[in-house]
Amino acid sequence: MSAASKVPAVETQAVGRYLLFLGDVTEPGFAKTAFGLRDWAGERCVGELRLPAATVSAGLPQLSCEEAAAQGATALVIGVAAAGGAIPDAWVPTLVAALDAGLDIVSGMHVRLDSLPALRAAAARSGRRLFDVRVPPAEIPIATGLPRSGRRILTVGTDCALGKKYTALAISRGLGARGVDVSFRATGQTGIMIAGSGMPIDAVVSDFVAGAAEILSPAADPGHVDVIEGQGSLFHPAFAGVSLGLLHGSQPDMFVVCHDPRREHLLGYPSSSLPSIETVIVQTIALGRVTNPSIRCVGVALNTGGMTQEDAEAAIALYAARLPYPVADPMRGGPAFERLLDACQEMS
Amino acid sequence: MSAASKVPAVETQAVGRYLLFLGDVTEPGFAKTAFGLRDWAGERCVGELRLPAATVSAGLPQLSCEEAAAQGATALVIGVAAAGGAIPDAWVPTLVAALDAGLDIVSGMHVRLDSLPALRAAAARSGRRLFDVRVPPAEIPIATGLPRSGRRILTVGTDCALGKKYTALAISRGLGARGVDVSFRATGQTGIMIAGSGMPIDAVVSDFVAGAAEILSPAADPGHVDVIEGQGSLFHPAFAGVSLGLLHGSQPDMFVVCHDPRREHLLGYPSSSLPSIETVIVQTIALGRVTNPSIRCVGVALNTGGMTQEDAEAAIALYAARLPYPVADPMRGGPAFERLLDACQEMS
Repeated sequence: MSAASKVPAVETQAVGRYLLFLGDVTEPGFAKTAFGLRDWAGERCVGELRLPAATVSAGLPQLSCEEAAAQGATALVIGVAAAGGAIPDAWVPTLVAALDAGLDIVSGMHVRLDSLPALRAAAARSGRRLFDVRVPPAEIPIATGLPRSGRRILTVGTDCALGKKYTALAISRGLGARGVDVSFRATGQTGIMIAGSGMPIDAVVSDFVAGAAEILSPAADPGHVDVIEGQGSLFHPAFAGVSLGLLHGSQPDMFVVCHDPRREHLLGYPSSSLPSIETVIVQTIALGRVTNPSIRCVGVALNTGGMTQEDAEAAIALYAARLPYPVADPMRGGPAFERLLDACQEMS
Repeated sequence: MSAASKVPAVETQAVGRYLLFLGDVTEPGFAKTAFGLRDWAGERCVGELRLPAATVSAGLPQLSCEEAAAQGATALVIGVAAAGGAIPDAWVPTLVAALDAGLDIVSGMHVRLDSLPALRAAAARSGRRLFDVRVPPAEIPIATGLPRSGRRILTVGTDCALGKKYTALAISRGLGARGVDVSFRATGQTGIMIAGSGMPIDAVVSDFVAGAAEILSPAADPGHVDVIEGQGSLFHPAFAGVSLGLLHGSQPDMFVVCHDPRREHLLGYPSSSLPSIETVIVQTIALGRVTNPSIRCVGVALNTGGMTQEDAEAAIALYAARLPYPVADPMRGGPAFERLLDACQEMS
């Protein structure tokens, strides 16, 4: 996959090397950013730094800030989410030490790094930078809705947190390996850190979400493909508006539906059942036609993480028999995923 | 209609009396806020104040700030939008004079009043307040999606700016006149000024739009009706995400589709044709079911402003023959509108 071309969006460290900070995390689910960077930008992760209370590891070498800097790290990345989105006091000495060791700091937390006086002072003293990837750029325009050149693929889902980012990354990588001119377009904090740029779409003021999606995937050469990380779900009681604005602004020619076959209810919403894949396809087409009349589904990505290979293949076969689209788990690859990539390459 | 009950949203002057400031406006379309206040809160508008260059009037008595204060005004309202959403330098002396005369200032502009040093200083000096109704409250929660008591009616539309606010206000007033316990719930700047409270939904960060709608129309007595001002359109290339978040968070039992029979393209989007009313109904039900499975359409509000009575009646009859719902122009009232109110009162 080619480096993401320059877009007027949040920029972090497109060529930087990271030290992953895991804080005092004890719950693997809170370390998704660190795991995402390890899995998709492993060549740029020189090591990890954990506080004594941490019980979760990304499996990288343990390094101090000074050791990481000596090994080429340019930034410490906060790779873990704390409850409430704040930066605990216990983290601050380590973050200050990182700045003093010559590292920038990259954060996807809700709280802004420069709102902490100790970090602001250390950054000024050391001349290092504080990157808040969750802060959208200023001056986002209202969407025009006008068609633009280039081809775009969006990942959509039956729910949140079931593989839209990993699927978009896998498709980007797969198409890139086939020689396609492709960019991954990140819309969430972890994706932005992986790509080095992107748009924190859920932090954009609602009037400007579709406009933000338009500038994230700008007009491109006719043969260029943007693979856009989806967010939320059109059927999610809290986040559907984000999903719809992203769909309209992305103007995708193609979309891939991401689904976890084991999930029966929306994550964190036990009284909300999951929509069917078919329902998601019908609605994505009906609504997506507003900005791209030729939108079509090109495949289904099943999240079979944690299943045995046999169970995963059985699940994929079950959905493939039901649906007139290629079905694959992009993280398992294989012929099924190659068929999904074939579909992404077919010109509409 | 009863006074809007207290909600944790933007509060202006629920019991205040306004002086409408028209600045130097020469285009009636830019004076919509002043016209809305005149039309829906006329008993609270003591007069208007225009700069010499203005050519548009709301038809109220011309008053200075001192005269308005003497006649009981408590706030100057910026009733006009300037290009770009900024406050022109030429307005500042008048705004300072208003504060010095003992008036608060209420603004729905994008720029915050307290970002202007002259206004900040004058407010501190006079002890008066600066209200920015476009600034959402802090601490909006993520939507829960859980059902809540009370009944809710949402106005939706085939486009922006074709009568969703006026329709919601007319239905609120009509139901109130019938003795229904009803509140108008404002979602835009003018509506908030009319109601004295509300939620500037298009200024809310996208992740929180549905949550903002939930707190705008909180759980209420089973017989209470909230009539919620709609925003945008599910088929608008820029604003559909706002509309969908508002739909999900509002959990309406009923909705009314607003339409202008003369409009052929989306306002400002000449290449986007309007969706049909039927399409809007089908999609509003399909998507609204996520948070309220019993959502249903109860009527269609046609905007026939500027048409002769004969032409308006012909247009209403045409749509009424086509659609299995009451069709009326709420601003013209009459038996057709009474039938629409009847439908709003039918228990689902």
